[in-house]
Amino acid sequence: MSQLVPPHGSPSLKLLLLQGAQCKEELKRAEKLKRVPMTTRETSDLIMMGIGAFTPLDGFMGHDDWKGCCDDFKMPSKKGLFWPIPITLSADQATADGVSVGSEVALLDTETDAVMGTMKVTEKYSIDKKHECQKIFATTDEAHPGVQKVMEQGPVNLAGPVKVLSESYYPEMFDIYQRPAESRKAFEERGWSTVAALQLRNPMHGSHAYLAWVAIEVCDGVYIHQLVGKLKAGDIPAEVRVKAIEALVNKYFRRERVIQGGYPMEMRYAGPREALLHAVFRQNYGCSHLIVGRDHAGVGDYYGPFDAQKIFNEIPSDALRLRPLAMDWTFYCYECGTMASMKTCPHESKAVIDDNGNYKGGARLLLSGTLLRKLMSEGKPVPSEFSKPEVIAILKEYYDSLEEKVEVKLHGAATGEAAKKK
Amino acid sequence: MSQLVPPHGSPSLKLLLLQGAQCKEELKRAEKLKRVPMTTRETSDLIMMGIGAFTPLDGFMGHDDWKGCCDDFKMPSKKGLFWPIPITLSADQATADGVSVGSEVALLDTETDAVMGTMKVTEKYSIDKKHECQKIFATTDEAHPGVQKVMEQGPVNLAGPVKVLSESYYPEMFDIYQRPAESRKAFEERGWSTVAALQLRNPMHGSHAYLAWVAIEVCDGVYIHQLVGKLKAGDIPAEVRVKAIEALVNKYFRRERVIQGGYPMEMRYAGPREALLHAVFRQNYGCSHLIVGRDHAGVGDYYGPFDAQKIFNEIPSDALRLRPLAMDWTFYCYECGTMASMKTCPHESKAVIDDNGNYKGGARLLLSGTLLRKLMSEGKPVPSEFSKPEVIAILKEYYDSLEEKVEVKLHGAATGEAAKKK
Repeated sequence: MSQLVPPHGSPSLKLLLLQGAQCKEELKRAEKLKRVPMTTRETSDLIMMGIGAFTPLDGFMGHDDWKGCCDDFKMPSKKGLFWPIPITLSADQATADGVSVGSEVALLDTETDAVMGTMKVTEKYSIDKKHECQKIFATTDEAHPGVQKVMEQGPVNLAGPVKVLSESYYPEMFDIYQRPAESRKAFEERGWSTVAALQLRNPMHGSHAYLAWVAIEVCDGVYIHQLVGKLKAGDIPAEVRVKAIEALVNKYFRRERVIQGGYPMEMRYAGPREALLHAVFRQNYGCSHLIVGRDHAGVGDYYGPFDAQKIFNEIPSDALRLRPLAMDWTFYCYECGTMASMKTCPHESKAVIDDNGNYKGGARLLLSGTLLRKLMSEGKPVPSEFSKPEVIAILKEYYDSLEEKVEVKLHGAATGEAAKKK
Repeated sequence: MSQLVPPHGSPSLKLLLLQGAQCKEELKRAEKLKRVPMTTRETSDLIMMGIGAFTPLDGFMGHDDWKGCCDDFKMPSKKGLFWPIPITLSADQATADGVSVGSEVALLDTETDAVMGTMKVTEKYSIDKKHECQKIFATTDEAHPGVQKVMEQGPVNLAGPVKVLSESYYPEMFDIYQRPAESRKAFEERGWSTVAALQLRNPMHGSHAYLAWVAIEVCDGVYIHQLVGKLKAGDIPAEVRVKAIEALVNKYFRRERVIQGGYPMEMRYAGPREALLHAVFRQNYGCSHLIVGRDHAGVGDYYGPFDAQKIFNEIPSDALRLRPLAMDWTFYCYECGTMASMKTCPHESKAVIDDNGNYKGGARLLLSGTLLRKLMSEGKPVPSEFSKPEVIAILKEYYDSLEEKVEVKLHGAATGEAAKKK
């Protein structure tokens, strides 16, 4: 009997996304409303609310909830329910001045220029941004990408309940894009009660595979939950990652214990606080556990490697139904003869792999992205203890296709021929 | 910062064992009291209460708590606090007739004839034993060893608060015997917050070692918690088991992640209900998790292999702070190249080991006690995927010493010489 964890603070998912005729009607109505442009973070938060991933929020937070989240991890408007990071909408002064409390506004995605939702404005307020940054990011350093976005946002926050009218390009662009109701259904169909979420933004090398493996040992299944969205330079596209993970799972796992899914939330890099937000929305997705590794959701050296694990011990025990699966740095150990972590492997020495991919002695084989790329680009074998050949083959195919494109471009620029053939 | 789970239903351990002068005084006073003999199960439960392992119980349960535990997993006398198996004291009719409500009695260990405690009798009542058996053991079959003991116990239950005056031979006889306050102190000294209890009654072969390994990956440490007490024929003595576990841990684990301890409670073989009782007292020992494998605390085929895991999903989510780590049947897989379980290993075939201990093909190497004993007794190598050589060496030493004793006995009986030399 499948018995998934309930959504956060609610017996059912709170879906703010309108469907069909209702949605069309609201979109039409929205045409006449004053427009409030959203940052990419705000747009992604709105979609998360639309699909129920931010259950039980009804919209962007007012001042009391903003303060409650910052100072006490609590929303006064929801009987003090646990919430670790404020979900707010900002506006520049001119926009804010043109909006009156009680009016309705259309929420605009600045990237696509599309109306994403409407909001009934119940409050306009200003915040101490540095206070938010200090509480949420534990720093006010503007070199921190999360701090930077807060400091750059407009000076006024607008609050109120929202109706969500679009999921943007996610459903079309990403096969693995999934709403909480869909993941819950998939888990239930498999009879799962306990599900561990594995946050992943990379192809699954040996280390990630081991995290998933351990999670399956102690849960009914693992949900490989990937952030989908715009790529940064050097990122591997979602479809390539998904394919590489599929190849790995098909051969080395019990296929029926793994489900992949994608979600649209933008990273804040808030380390421990963000780990808690990840926990909240993973519970909404139906997960009973969240794998929290070293430096979860961190950036630079703003957070200690285990801060995101420790914070779960510091919040009240009834804050969340989801529990963390705290795991250390993992690697293959030639002396253990298996994958292991700093917590299990008693051997201290590092394994040495030469420039040709050959093992030269030592115990712990720590994943080196640099060496991996070097071996792959030179066509040399990657040790299977590092990453399975099936994964490497798919990545190699992808990189080769990139090179071809680059070659085509260069060639095309020189001769004007190749580009036309394409 | 160490932050262990609190004891069950109480901010601190409830220690009913009197110390020093207080204990001596009470023992003296007990001499004059009417004596109530206890079964071995009742004695072991009394000691568990003495050391705080059954926190927050004050003594043997009255009728309402007996019924509440049987029917609803609850103690009405403790505001409905969760408790999965009644903890009761029985008496034969004559004894019960000689005891009046309001009087005090001395509790006698029939095995050693020692006074173990005193009880202020607050209630005498009779129970429907079959009802208890059906609820607790899910059977009334008297071939079930737990049912048998209930059916054999006296017809009257005596209830009331107890003072515990002895831990019997446990502290002296077993180096690993540990009280909850001691395990908690040991966990805190290591800075652990999350601790997985591994119930063990055997030397640690590959399969058990893997359970411990996985538990360490997701918790701060593992507490190998062994039932100590009287041996059945063929049982390996606690000190041998402890030594074999030490040898394994010293070489193949990070030593600082493992603690061994022993506890005195008698098995009831109540399967799922007993798994819950194990969970309650492990929480009192400071454990945040309990490893629940296949057929935990089961006997024969009275319970489905995963019933003891499923029951944790059926009790209220706030019944316990401890969480189960539900794990499947584990083994070495030659195709995975690692330890695995039915949930992770995708290969279905069984590995074949010939009579000389050589691998002959196939994937899953399931532990066979019969083959293990055969290989050991014939001095043939045991595959290290089965059990590590350090463990085998200690077991072999033990079995050899048994044979010597047997030989000495046989020889001595025949000649009357060898026995005298000993």
